[in-house]
Amino acid sequence: MDHHALVKLLETVFVVLSLVALWFSVSNFSYVKRFLIGRPMRTSELHAQHNKLFWMIALPILSADLYSSVAYGPEAGITELAGLGPDARWIILPLTISSIVLLAILIVSYIMGILAYPNGGGAYAIAKDNFKPKWVSLIASSSLLVDYILTVAVSVSAALEAVSSAYPVVAPYETVLAILCVALLVLINLRGVAESARIFAWPTFAFMVCMLILIFTGLFDEMRHGFVQPATPSFGTVPQGLTTLLILKAFSSACSALTGIETISNAVPIFREPKQRNAIKTYIALGVITGVTLLGFAYHLYVKGIAPNPKETMLSQLSSLYFGHGIMYQIIIWFTFIVLILAANSTFTGFSQLAAIVAADGFLPRSLTNRGDRLGYSNGIIVLASLASILIIAFHAQTNALIPLYAIGVFLSFTVAQIGLVRRWKRVKGSRWWIKLTINLIGAVITSIVAVIFAVTKFTGGAWVVLVVLPILIFSSLAVHRHYQAIARELHIDLAITYPEANKVVTLVLVSGVHRVVNNTLSFAKGLGTDPIAVYVGFDEESINKMQQKWKEWGTPCRLVVLRSTYRSLLEPLIRLIKTIEAKQENGGYIHIVIPQFIPKKRWHNLLHNQSALLLRMWLIQHKDIVITTVPYHLKD
Amino acid sequence: MDHHALVKLLETVFVVLSLVALWFSVSNFSYVKRFLIGRPMRTSELHAQHNKLFWMIALPILSADLYSSVAYGPEAGITELAGLGPDARWIILPLTISSIVLLAILIVSYIMGILAYPNGGGAYAIAKDNFKPKWVSLIASSSLLVDYILTVAVSVSAALEAVSSAYPVVAPYETVLAILCVALLVLINLRGVAESARIFAWPTFAFMVCMLILIFTGLFDEMRHGFVQPATPSFGTVPQGLTTLLILKAFSSACSALTGIETISNAVPIFREPKQRNAIKTYIALGVITGVTLLGFAYHLYVKGIAPNPKETMLSQLSSLYFGHGIMYQIIIWFTFIVLILAANSTFTGFSQLAAIVAADGFLPRSLTNRGDRLGYSNGIIVLASLASILIIAFHAQTNALIPLYAIGVFLSFTVAQIGLVRRWKRVKGSRWWIKLTINLIGAVITSIVAVIFAVTKFTGGAWVVLVVLPILIFSSLAVHRHYQAIARELHIDLAITYPEANKVVTLVLVSGVHRVVNNTLSFAKGLGTDPIAVYVGFDEESINKMQQKWKEWGTPCRLVVLRSTYRSLLEPLIRLIKTIEAKQENGGYIHIVIPQFIPKKRWHNLLHNQSALLLRMWLIQHKDIVITTVPYHLKD
Repeated sequence: MDHHALVKLLETVFVVLSLVALWFSVSNFSYVKRFLIGRPMRTSELHAQHNKLFWMIALPILSADLYSSVAYGPEAGITELAGLGPDARWIILPLTISSIVLLAILIVSYIMGILAYPNGGGAYAIAKDNFKPKWVSLIASSSLLVDYILTVAVSVSAALEAVSSAYPVVAPYETVLAILCVALLVLINLRGVAESARIFAWPTFAFMVCMLILIFTGLFDEMRHGFVQPATPSFGTVPQGLTTLLILKAFSSACSALTGIETISNAVPIFREPKQRNAIKTYIALGVITGVTLLGFAYHLYVKGIAPNPKETMLSQLSSLYFGHGIMYQIIIWFTFIVLILAANSTFTGFSQLAAIVAADGFLPRSLTNRGDRLGYSNGIIVLASLASILIIAFHAQTNALIPLYAIGVFLSFTVAQIGLVRRWKRVKGSRWWIKLTINLIGAVITSIVAVIFAVTKFTGGAWVVLVVLPILIFSSLAVHRHYQAIARELHIDLAITYPEANKVVTLVLVSGVHRVVNNTLSFAKGLGTDPIAVYVGFDEESINKMQQKWKEWGTPCRLVVLRSTYRSLLEPLIRLIKTIEAKQENGGYIHIVIPQFIPKKRWHNLLHNQSALLLRMWLIQHKDIVITTVPYHLKD
Repeated sequence: MDHHALVKLLETVFVVLSLVALWFSVSNFSYVKRFLIGRPMRTSELHAQHNKLFWMIALPILSADLYSSVAYGPEAGITELAGLGPDARWIILPLTISSIVLLAILIVSYIMGILAYPNGGGAYAIAKDNFKPKWVSLIASSSLLVDYILTVAVSVSAALEAVSSAYPVVAPYETVLAILCVALLVLINLRGVAESARIFAWPTFAFMVCMLILIFTGLFDEMRHGFVQPATPSFGTVPQGLTTLLILKAFSSACSALTGIETISNAVPIFREPKQRNAIKTYIALGVITGVTLLGFAYHLYVKGIAPNPKETMLSQLSSLYFGHGIMYQIIIWFTFIVLILAANSTFTGFSQLAAIVAADGFLPRSLTNRGDRLGYSNGIIVLASLASILIIAFHAQTNALIPLYAIGVFLSFTVAQIGLVRRWKRVKGSRWWIKLTINLIGAVITSIVAVIFAVTKFTGGAWVVLVVLPILIFSSLAVHRHYQAIARELHIDLAITYPEANKVVTLVLVSGVHRVVNNTLSFAKGLGTDPIAVYVGFDEESINKMQQKWKEWGTPCRLVVLRSTYRSLLEPLIRLIKTIEAKQENGGYIHIVIPQFIPKKRWHNLLHNQSALLLRMWLIQHKDIVITTVPYHLKD
């Protein structure tokens, strides 16, 4: 028990440290950063890397997110029914068939999207184009952003569950390793390997081949040993305790396998010409492969009577039945791992690009539009990684615990996009528009029903979190937008009316004694030509007298004002002085405080010097209309 | 198991949050702080609170630390022998007798200290007075500081163990509650209740009475039921497996009851005249009471055959044997709790005062000498609380786990002080100086032997941590001292030679466009009379052209320099410009960069604005000899 607690504690410490380290390596101009992230890239390099892709290459590149879900989707569905015993296992077949039907409907709907927006139309872009109220497009963007975060958490957790099925020794460290994977993904994405890099094609392709081999091995096995085997549970019996709610719950969990469909429609521009046609071809091919895999996999699970086991994924159980723990089993496990990590990786691009687009429209903090050294949206990448890490820690990297939160967002944004397309066909018309309209209308109705089923059946299991977070996110986005607009109005000036006139400046120099730093600061202040006044704050009579004496000995470099502090605080006497000056000052004048600052040679030496100047500066800047100048003095020691 | 992990996680979160909250409440001028800490006090109030104490009142006030140790000292000793079975239980008697002998020797030695330093002589002061090399006095101070931290951790943990003996339901929350107690002690000490407050006399006095009642009840019980009872283990048998090492280990654990002896000798000035005589009287009385208590308690433990039990302290076991779980038992438990908390409380004063003295000598960061609003040394209080909290968390508030680290420091500083006194008697002589010298010599030899026994027997159990930390602390202190001396030399100027001449200042104003904030900043810069130059950093040609156009339309308020940034960084083009100016500049000139800063009305709005100005400022101040001015613009929204 104590050992477990220690592991958790170490995990927390590790996560905090790695986030801090990350932040440092990203925000500082350090060698570490150069080593990890690579040389900075020119803005002009942004558009240099585009080579259009042949559709057969694009297929595996764009399908990691969708196709990798076969590793956890069917299992998530059947796990919901585990409590009903072996009699309920046959239900995996109708469940899988209905999710394949849903997949087909979604793909046809998305093909309509490609026809409408050949330059790539995410749900947010479609909603923005077809709805006037901003909150509609914000539903699409916010729910997608939330789901991207969940995709990273779910995919990485599932990847580690795959590995710990083969190597149970890994199981206690799943959370730590999952966080490590996320950290690695952050590095990869800050380096900015393009999402469309051809290198990402082959692992997904290999995983597809693995899954097909598995399915054909299964068929071959069934041809030899019969399609009903000793282990096969009964078919068609209605187990005790089966309720409609439970079936719907299982269905919605199984549908977590459908996330990631939107990737191709966002990526139309990277296809070779004719790009729309090629993208559609890719969609159909992907749909067929995914459908075949889901159905074949589910069928073999049923025939072999495999039950969910928290310590070993069903994919691992099935593979080891066919291949033992030999080389083929290892290949399947490790490609599952790699493809799930790739799915998380593609999500990084999706999240940071969508966040940047929404931020550029003024609905999210503008810093999300900043491109980092390697042209990726670094802040979005870090935000995604942090939030996904929090989820992974909170849910101990357990896929089944995360599933109830998952996929609602995707189906919400599907619905918004479909309704948007319906409105578009009605407005734009075009050839055979009513067919397209009908398709999207059916899509809208079905996805909205699915979204409602998700929300209702998984509500208590965790979906309520998403249903609470989403409105908050949408309202905050609107608040952010209002803030930016208010600022823009406030900052706007009429060039003909407003002009920067020189205003009177009263310069105060804070002095703590007579020494080299004060000498340096006064040299600067006297160079300004505003006739500076030195201000000394004394805590007792003795030090005040000594200061006045020394100032005289020094030949009175400028006027000296002495303030008494009965409470050992710099701030209070200073505020009194500022109020006195303000009272005398005409309109538009500035009070300007010059503060010396030691800069020690070694960072840790800062601990040895009172940071009162720094705190004073922070307070004054925040609360008063006062200009603050810092004169650094770099210590040699 | 998961529930346990959750508790641990919550604990960590709680600790982090409470430390953050503490820091905020201390460093900000907030209502919260005023409510918790009270109104600030004038420096002149510092010496107003001294009423000299009658020795019978001083006795309980100054003895919480020493006397409270009876609650865990004997138990810590016998726990080391628990593995040997009931046959070893009689050893508690010789163990206790030898620690009482040690107590007597220490008290006599400390009385010599009072005779030598009537104004209060801590080990650090004695060492400083009698040894030239600074590291000797640093051994005394560092080991005391380390031990003060351990005293807080041990006392608070023991206090909670007392409570959870009576209320096992508390046991899983010991760590959280211990941290809460530390937080409470921080508040009390920031409020600055004087250590010598009379209110602290009665709980310790009541605890002493409780312990004496317990001992007399025991005697009465033994007179009725015999001095050897059925439960009494055999006496004098040598149990199998008993080694010298084990006995020494048990002895050193039992000696953890002797920490806190130094309090009276530090506090001589608070006694009524004749203060030396009264302090000595108090020492003798305290020695007698502690000795009687230790011996009586140990004897009854032996007679009743009580064995250590991690779930219930031996004090609780013995009390419940005599009094059941009635009112007397409750009184004993709660006074144990209160007195142990008081012991931790007195340590706060001891630590922060010693740290302030050492810091004033330049061996620790000077901020430790700052008095807070209520005249306590706030920084020392917070440092102590943070380090003690870390120990409590790391050791799950288990007294027996902390004991191996404990008391080495105290005995090290005892040794240094004794040798210092020996040197003093040799130097100063005075009446019957050779008696005093002999006493301190014996004291020195014995405490050094005990310190070596501690280090050897508890080395693997945790003492190595202290033996690693101490040299590090001493070396760091010396490094800190060197740093302060080097700085003092570097900053010193000859008033006759160095004088602040006005130097040429080149003022650059960073502008990000043409708007109200820029207008405000330029108004200020033009008021300086240094003929400012506006600097604009553009990321692409389009924005650069637009800026130049607008600047012309605005009537060119001042010269505009435009910099191109190919890497989307403000810093790089700016550094190039700075280097160009530096190359042209004569000696002693200043480059002065004026940066506008938005100050949003609500703190969280800062998230919505790029903090690039802030990061730029931090980097330039740290790395370049450049004066930075921040012109705040307080947004209305």
